[in-house]
Formats: sequence, C-alpha cells, structure tokens
Amino acid sequence: MTTITAARAFDIRFPTSRFLDGSDAMNPDPDYSAAYCVLETDGGGEGHGLTFTLGRGTELCVAAIEALAGKVVGRTLDGIRGDLAGFWRTLVGDTQIRWLGPEKGVVHLAAAALVNAVWDLMAKEAGLPLWRYLAAMTPEEIVAAIDFRHITDALPPERALELLRARLPGKCERIAALEADGHAAYTTSAGWLGYPDEKIRDLASAAVEAGWRGIKMKVGASLADDRRRAALLRDVLGPDRLLMTDANQVWDVGPAIEWVRALAEFDLYWIEEPTSPDDILGHARIREAVAPVRVATGEHCHNRVMFKQFLQAGAIDVVQIDACRLGGVNEALAVLLMAAAYDKPVCPHAGGVGLCEYVQHLAFFDAACVRPGDEGRMIEHAAHLHEHFVDPIRIERGRYLAPQRPGYSAEMKPESRDAFAFPHGAEWRGA
Amino acid sequence: MTTITAARAFDIRFPTSRFLDGSDAMNPDPDYSAAYCVLETDGGGEGHGLTFTLGRGTELCVAAIEALAGKVVGRTLDGIRGDLAGFWRTLVGDTQIRWLGPEKGVVHLAAAALVNAVWDLMAKEAGLPLWRYLAAMTPEEIVAAIDFRHITDALPPERALELLRARLPGKCERIAALEADGHAAYTTSAGWLGYPDEKIRDLASAAVEAGWRGIKMKVGASLADDRRRAALLRDVLGPDRLLMTDANQVWDVGPAIEWVRALAEFDLYWIEEPTSPDDILGHARIREAVAPVRVATGEHCHNRVMFKQFLQAGAIDVVQIDACRLGGVNEALAVLLMAAAYDKPVCPHAGGVGLCEYVQHLAFFDAACVRPGDEGRMIEHAAHLHEHFVDPIRIERGRYLAPQRPGYSAEMKPESRDAFAFPHGAEWRGA
Repeated sequence: MTTITAARAFDIRFPTSRFLDGSDAMNPDPDYSAAYCVLETDGGGEGHGLTFTLGRGTELCVAAIEALAGKVVGRTLDGIRGDLAGFWRTLVGDTQIRWLGPEKGVVHLAAAALVNAVWDLMAKEAGLPLWRYLAAMTPEEIVAAIDFRHITDALPPERALELLRARLPGKCERIAALEADGHAAYTTSAGWLGYPDEKIRDLASAAVEAGWRGIKMKVGASLADDRRRAALLRDVLGPDRLLMTDANQVWDVGPAIEWVRALAEFDLYWIEEPTSPDDILGHARIREAVAPVRVATGEHCHNRVMFKQFLQAGAIDVVQIDACRLGGVNEALAVLLMAAAYDKPVCPHAGGVGLCEYVQHLAFFDAACVRPGDEGRMIEHAAHLHEHFVDPIRIERGRYLAPQRPGYSAEMKPESRDAFAFPHGAEWRGA
Repeated sequence: MTTITAARAFDIRFPTSRFLDGSDAMNPDPDYSAAYCVLETDGGGEGHGLTFTLGRGTELCVAAIEALAGKVVGRTLDGIRGDLAGFWRTLVGDTQIRWLGPEKGVVHLAAAALVNAVWDLMAKEAGLPLWRYLAAMTPEEIVAAIDFRHITDALPPERALELLRARLPGKCERIAALEADGHAAYTTSAGWLGYPDEKIRDLASAAVEAGWRGIKMKVGASLADDRRRAALLRDVLGPDRLLMTDANQVWDVGPAIEWVRALAEFDLYWIEEPTSPDDILGHARIREAVAPVRVATGEHCHNRVMFKQFLQAGAIDVVQIDACRLGGVNEALAVLLMAAAYDKPVCPHAGGVGLCEYVQHLAFFDAACVRPGDEGRMIEHAAHLHEHFVDPIRIERGRYLAPQRPGYSAEMKPESRDAFAFPHGAEWRGA
C-alpha cells in the first residue's frame, strides 16, 4: 500500500527565446518552461508531472500546484485507483478554487501536472510505460477514470464502454505492431516564424531526408512571407508529403478564410488555430469555407466540454489534445473517446518542453485501444529540449518508437532541473 | 499629467461560509473574497480595483496582479486614455503569460482588477462616477476602448459606432431619469441553498415588503426541495413578481431540461447556469426545450468570444456579464454592445463582494447609452458585505439609485481591508 507523502513544485525555464525556437505569430518570444511537480511516496518511488508554460507566469502554476497539493498528499495509490474519476473531481472541483476556472486556465494547468504525476506513479509501480498501463486496464476501468459531467449528451458512459469493448479484438496484435513499427508523426521544427528562409530550407530538406511525412509551418504575420515560405516548403516536400500550417489564433473569422484560400494552391493539409481557440462557431464557419483544407485546433482547448462542442458542431477535422492543457490523463481519455465517437483523428499537440514525451503515450493508447483505423492519426514532433529528459522520445524514419520505460516519460534529469530552475539556477543567474 | 507609480495587491477574505451566505449547489461553502489592487499615482490619487474570488486560491490572483503590474506602473493616464484598446491588449496579451489563459482563468481575473482600477482612477480624476464618465465619452471614444479581435464577425467597429450614435438623441433625458428613478433590480439574498425554509420565507416576505420585483432561488441539489421552495416563494411573491432560478452548472444537458420542466409550473422567469458555463451548444438546446422559461448565463463566461457565440447561437435570453470575470471595463463594453446588437438584455451578475458596487455602473451606462428600451434589464442584488465599501450601493424600493461619487465604487474601507486581510488580519488570526 503506497501512500503519497509529499508534493513539491518547481519553476523550470529554458531560455528558448534567445534563438527564436518556438516563435510564431502569437508567441514571438517563448521561453519554453514547466511548472514541474514531484510526488514522493512512503515506498521511495516518485511520480513526476509537469505543465507546459512559456516563461513569465510559470510561478502562478507552481503556486497553484501548491494550492492543490493537499488533494493528493496523504492519499494511497490503492485509494486513488479505486475511484479514479472521483480523485480527478477532487482536483478540479475544490469548492472555492473552482471559481478561478472553472476547469480552465492556471488552476486547470496545475491540476494536470498533479494528475499526470499520479498516473506516472501508478504506471511506474506497475512497471509499465503509461500507454501499456492504460492498455492493460479493462474498458470498465477506463470508463471509471472519466468524469462524464457535462458531456453525457455527446458521450454517455455506456457509449464509451461500447467503443472500448468493440476494440478489444485484435488489441494484442495492434500493440505488437506499435512496438515493432512505431507511430506516424510529423515535425514542427522546420517552420518557426522567427527562422530565416535559408534555415527553413535546410531544416526542411533535412526533415525530408530523415523520413518525415509532413512538416508544419507557422503562418499569419505576412501573407507575402507565408506564400513565399509555403512555395519553398512545397518545393522541398514534393507533391506527396504533407504541409500543415499553424496561425496560432491571429485571425478573425473573415480574414482567416481569405488568408487560407490565398495559400490553398500549396496544397495545405490543415490550418491550425485559425482564430480564437474559444470560437467553436467561428471554426465551423472557417472549416466550411476552406475545405478541402482541414481545420485543426486543441492546444488551447481547455476541457472536455469545449472539445465536445467542436465535435458536435463539426467545427474541426483534427483533434489536437494537449496533455496538460486538459486536466491530465483522465480528461484526455474523455476526449480520445469523444473523438472516436465522432470519428475524428487525434493528433496531439507537442510543440513545447515535455509534450512530445507525454503525448506519445496518449497516441499509442488511442491506436491500440480506442479509435479504429489509422486514418489521419499523427503525433506532432518538435526537436528541441529532449536531452533534459530521463526517458526522451525516440524517433526513427519520421516515426515515434513506442516508449518502453515505466511511467509517463515526463521526468526531467535532476541536473537539468537544477540548472534551469528559475530564477536561481546556473542558466539564469547571469541573465 | 498623472503617472501611475505603484500597484499593490491584497488578499482579502470574508468568512461567509460560517453562515452559508452565498451557498449554492456548486459552491456550498464560499468565503467571499477579493484579490484587491491599489494603484498609486504621483498626484496622490489612488485607483482601486478588485477581482471577486471564493476564498482559497485568492493568493493566485494576487500573484497574477503582481505579475501584470508592470504593464500599468509607469504609464500616464494621458497615455492610457490615448489608446485604451491598446492598453487593454498589453494586459491580456503578454506574449508569455497569455499561454496561461488565454483571456480566461486566473490571469484574466487579475487583469480585470488592474483594468478596473485604471478606470476608477480615470473617473475619479474626472470627478465623475464611472457610468457618467463612460456616458461622457463620445461613441468614437467608446469604440476606441474596445479590442475587437475575434469578434468582428458579430460586431465590427462600424456597427458598434452605429449603435452608439443611434442612442445619442435623448441621452441627457435618460441620464436625468436614471438619476431620478434609479434602475430596476432583483435580489438573490433570499434563496441561498444553505438556508432553511423558514429563513427563506422570512427573507422573501421582507423582500416583497421592501419592494423587490423579483427574487432568485438556488436550485439543483434536490428536486423535491426545489419544488417545495419554489412553491413557498411563489406563494410569497404572488403571481406578478418574478421568480428566477439558478442551478450553478450542476446539470448535464438532458437532466437540465427535465428538471426545469418539473419546476415550470411555478412560473420561472429564468433558469441561470443550467449546465457548464462553457457549453454554448448545450445552452442552445436547453433554451429551445424549456421555453418560455428564459435561459441566463454569464458569471463564468470569461471573455467576449464566448458571449459572442452565446448570442450567435441563440443560446441565451439574458446576458449576465461579470465586471471582473470579463477583463474589466473595456471587455464589458464589448459585450454590452454585442448584446445590444442581438437585442438581448444585460442583467449583470452581482452575487459576491464588490460586484453590486461595480456592475451598477455598467447597467446605468447601458441604459443611458447602449441598448434601446428597458425591456428585461435588471441588476442583481445581494445584501451582504456592502458595509465594507467607501461608496456602497444605495437601494430604494427594490431599485438601485444612481451612483454619485467619483470612481468605480469598488474602494474598500481601509479598516475592512486590514481586518479581513488573509491570513494575518484580525478576523482571521484566530481562525
């Protein structure tokens, strides 16, 4: 019987803005960061979780983790496993803190770090990588991990159970295939807005060489620049590889339609975040107007109720869940199942530190146990900062290899946590 | 030329949970609280703003105010007045902090406190109560205070200008009438869920006696209780006064419809927050199913993009803006104008500390300068905690009297701020 005895939170920031890594039209100067949390147990095992941030304000998520830590400390893993949805509700449903969301913003990001750390702990205790831990749960156990509040009109628990049960046949074979062949992916690391054309061409050529099937470019600052870069990338990619675009919310609905149409000749696979991430009806209008270009969103989609509506309204083609924008594994499961119910592919968001490590588990589990077929399912890849993780992603010929080590893979190396601790770590002391 | 020289933030909590004031189905034990902010100037004048909270977690909003304070300190009032929308964007659009919302949750609540404190300062400097300060601005100046990003599909600036210009004739007469007769209102203070029946009957009788035209009761914990209380309140109210109900988000879409139908015989004026505040499509379905009972929501509606969609989808009958859930005065103006464009009444949310003081200004301005006609416009009233304010609301025969003192009325008495400071104020030291 393992008991969680302490929760510690850390502010860790990488000075990525110095090189414009991660730059886009809305986020010109991100310092990829994390509000990082470590759960200690009486057995000596540790759970690690993080929520991704962009630098300033990370301290707010750290403080929110501390404010919520009391919901976790003192709990036993057996007790949590016995009521996974109830455990999740205690983290997002505090009767006073809830006002500050509800289920969105700083408090939801913080809850995600804690929730994910608990799943990391449970998977480690079972000796399984998280996706295998989830795949070993019965459909009934998965359903019991989900808070269906406010989504039963789109996905009642019985329907979720039905979907999971329908995927039981062939599960072992699918797991074996995923272990052998990995999972489809695309890369974002060639097309950051802050990069000059030559750097983009070199990176894109290298990406094609390395076997990537698709590249995402950032758009939205200047149409002339976007057309020039899209032509450049389409030239490097050839006609068969995929070119995704990402506007990071800069447009209003009307301008989004015009801009995407002005890029359509370059055969865009999708346009991501064309407008406000809260604008379900706006995305629906854009989608109708720019087809066959797909519409994708999700990295700022803060909970299952928003994703429910994006699906109900037919507003998106691609569901880009974020492992810590949503309230951690429990809520990600809800969205994977809703996406399957509406037959939309989930292509998780992973432009950030630790996000690739996280979301690979969700995508592999989705492939093994949730959505039938592989059509359109891809994991985003961003190349940087993996060296700071104990169990970094492994890429081969443009595909993610299945994670093998126990846990949720978000554990940072102690020396990285020390060096990039803000503001007193060695990397920040001079800054 | 006044310059803002410092911004100080305070954590102030009132132990209302000891008496179940403010209790409802989702919030059983609120301690009405505020992340409170004071702007100091070189001229000696002060601006005061607050964001309402429920107790735990207030420290997060205080920290967020501190994180954003640098956007305000050092600015001149002339500079801010010269670009009000641009000023607002600097507060909600920090390129790193924005990730933690965007435009929602803790960081948006904190921005609201600062934004409102700036408007308080500007109105005080002009020697006018905020609503008169707004009414003295030209249509062009009001439009220039609004960030239209992501709402131009529903309300382009030209349309906003048109609406405001159309209301110029008769403005002085309407202001005079508001000064003379005050503004319609209803009270929430009779029907908190934690109160016993006898207390509810006594409070409701007193409310009728005092001249209130409507009472709101909290529902959603037990249908039998709700039916008994609704019968009791309808009995006290008689057939002509209004009975509002508020479920504080507890239902899923299907159960919301069933529950409201089971209360319809008591002639409900509206059902408020029947489900998740994020669920635009759910509210639309509920509204269609429970008519003629109106659907109201807004106290958790975090920005203009969400209100835009509630209006576009025909999902609500009543627009319940919150003065500090939205990003302060600038964003409230955007929603007042959108509501007018869609011809829906705005009945601002005011169950909380300082909210009545705030929203009276928005409603009086709306009546004077924005939405034609009075149909359905009411200000919520909650009876408690007004004694802590320097310029408290004034009620006569169930109507708000027009605020007269310069500013936005959210300034708390220094002795109250000291006594209820958390955790070291006199009222908390023993707790």
